[in-house]
Amino acid sequence: MNIHEKRYNALRRRVDVRVRSLVKRESSKEVNDACRYVLSAGGKRIRAVLVLLSCEAVGGKVRDALAASAAIEIMHNFTLVHDDVMDNAASRRGRSTVHTKWDVNTAILSGDILLGFAYKEILKSRNIPRVLEVFTDGFLTVCEGQALDLDFEHRSNVTLGEYFMMIEKKTGRLIAASAELGACIGGGTETDIASLRKFGHYLGRAFQLQDDLLDVVADEKEFGKTIGGDIVEGKKTFLLLRSLGLTRGKERKDLMRVMNRNVATPRRATRWRATRWRATPRRSHTERAEEIRRITALYRSSGAIAEARRRIASDTRRAVAMLQALPDSRARGSLAWIAHILLKRNY
Amino acid sequence: MNIHEKRYNALRRRVDVRVRSLVKRESSKEVNDACRYVLSAGGKRIRAVLVLLSCEAVGGKVRDALAASAAIEIMHNFTLVHDDVMDNAASRRGRSTVHTKWDVNTAILSGDILLGFAYKEILKSRNIPRVLEVFTDGFLTVCEGQALDLDFEHRSNVTLGEYFMMIEKKTGRLIAASAELGACIGGGTETDIASLRKFGHYLGRAFQLQDDLLDVVADEKEFGKTIGGDIVEGKKTFLLLRSLGLTRGKERKDLMRVMNRNVATPRRATRWRATRWRATPRRSHTERAEEIRRITALYRSSGAIAEARRRIASDTRRAVAMLQALPDSRARGSLAWIAHILLKRNY
Repeated sequence: MNIHEKRYNALRRRVDVRVRSLVKRESSKEVNDACRYVLSAGGKRIRAVLVLLSCEAVGGKVRDALAASAAIEIMHNFTLVHDDVMDNAASRRGRSTVHTKWDVNTAILSGDILLGFAYKEILKSRNIPRVLEVFTDGFLTVCEGQALDLDFEHRSNVTLGEYFMMIEKKTGRLIAASAELGACIGGGTETDIASLRKFGHYLGRAFQLQDDLLDVVADEKEFGKTIGGDIVEGKKTFLLLRSLGLTRGKERKDLMRVMNRNVATPRRATRWRATRWRATPRRSHTERAEEIRRITALYRSSGAIAEARRRIASDTRRAVAMLQALPDSRARGSLAWIAHILLKRNY
Repeated sequence: MNIHEKRYNALRRRVDVRVRSLVKRESSKEVNDACRYVLSAGGKRIRAVLVLLSCEAVGGKVRDALAASAAIEIMHNFTLVHDDVMDNAASRRGRSTVHTKWDVNTAILSGDILLGFAYKEILKSRNIPRVLEVFTDGFLTVCEGQALDLDFEHRSNVTLGEYFMMIEKKTGRLIAASAELGACIGGGTETDIASLRKFGHYLGRAFQLQDDLLDVVADEKEFGKTIGGDIVEGKKTFLLLRSLGLTRGKERKDLMRVMNRNVATPRRATRWRATRWRATPRRSHTERAEEIRRITALYRSSGAIAEARRRIASDTRRAVAMLQALPDSRARGSLAWIAHILLKRNY
């Protein structure tokens, strides 16, 4: 374990302790349990660690950024709880999602309450008006990204440009906001703040592309999700959209079937559970596995997988280049290490 | 129309304009439409007007409190959108609810986005750290109140004390926060702020008791809800809980049937729609109407309705008494007028 990995783990533990200590308010048992369940799930705590290291990288103290790091992490968890309801996801990080373990109402409400905790926590930060503006913009942008993502489900004409706008909002902005917040709290100059925001921006884009890629190439057990889930659900990923641009004829038709999977699904419906699956005819396990194998092969033969890897590598390089504007420090080294580790992750 | 009513209407219009102008961000069409739909529904805008008048009553300017008043109103609307999903409510203010008109996902997400707008708006206020603390505490408390309310559904032993704690959180705190925010922004003294917060506290309690009462005594058309809905749904209202304490024998047994309506419903379930109604056997329209008539008669004969009226009147008096700590002004007069009008409302 190198010094950066040790440092990462130490910071992650501090975030864990802080985040777990927050659910204490008087409320219903179910909702409290659900909030605690979510916050104790662990996860990589990347956003929180980025806040802490960015603060340190501009000369600030980790303890000053602890509240903001917990706030970002809790807000991220709020988005996961609500997204899992909307995406009808049964598991996350290898555990049942809140609406599966409890019910939809508990998931909606504990999500809302988590967001409240996040705001309570961020209010303890320095540099309040600015920090809150970044935080709120991050929150709104994530929601807009999720709205676009839901919209995409029912469209067969999503472009690569729209895809990048969506992931920039849904994933990129919060990672960029994490680095920006740390820099604001640590008292960085405007140049420091802008550099760290851009570092987060490129890192976030690489991170999401990697996520799309892992859906087809990851080790199922380590990834904590079912391989090929995006294909089964007809998600408009980079691999799908790019492959569509690179293929013709029968192959393209095969890809268009994935693209059109939920397009016929009527949006206007109260029972979203009933409607979500109506357009997807029930298929056997073997049929699904066969489709995943076939589509993954197309992603590979079209060159989309290779292009995704190139883009991840170049975004990671861009992210690390942004760090050059900061003074040399151990924290800066750790940020660069994180960028490289994320690039190589297989979970 | 007296001067206070004119003033109220003028302020309400300013809030309407402000609130409607806010949905402009780039997002999905559905979610944007849903946000606009919610914010254009009107409603009494009581919380927003309380912010404005409280600001004025301590010597501040209405325009300084406009952002906070819009923020409180939008936050209130966020809670309505999510609550309607959780309560499976089909209509609100005589119009379809968001999850009925669109779908549950759109309702969850547009609720989240409304909350983001609310925070964006409150950030434009003066006296930022304090104003944000009050706002965030109001937001968290409303959610906790809703959590308790959902909990009550599945319990047959809810006490009157618990009921008051729940409505204080779910309704009272946000009304108190509205008055408190106005006073903070207007530069009121600590005494002014405390007095206005208490004014809001008593007003909020009277308001919720009135709401419980209107469910059985209101004019259906003006109220915008179905009369007796709380009875049909087995809601633990003041009238039900108080009547239970005041009756014996057969009458009490009849009331306990309402009390136990959802108790057997399993909470742990993914398909909350299926579970919500399972415990309630389908009853004909006539059976329902007959039950509403019978239970309402019990509420009356037990003395619970009379006691509710007495409590509403005394809370209103307490609220108005709190205003005595403030200098005499037109705004103070308008606040007292609002308290009296709410007491007499039949919608």
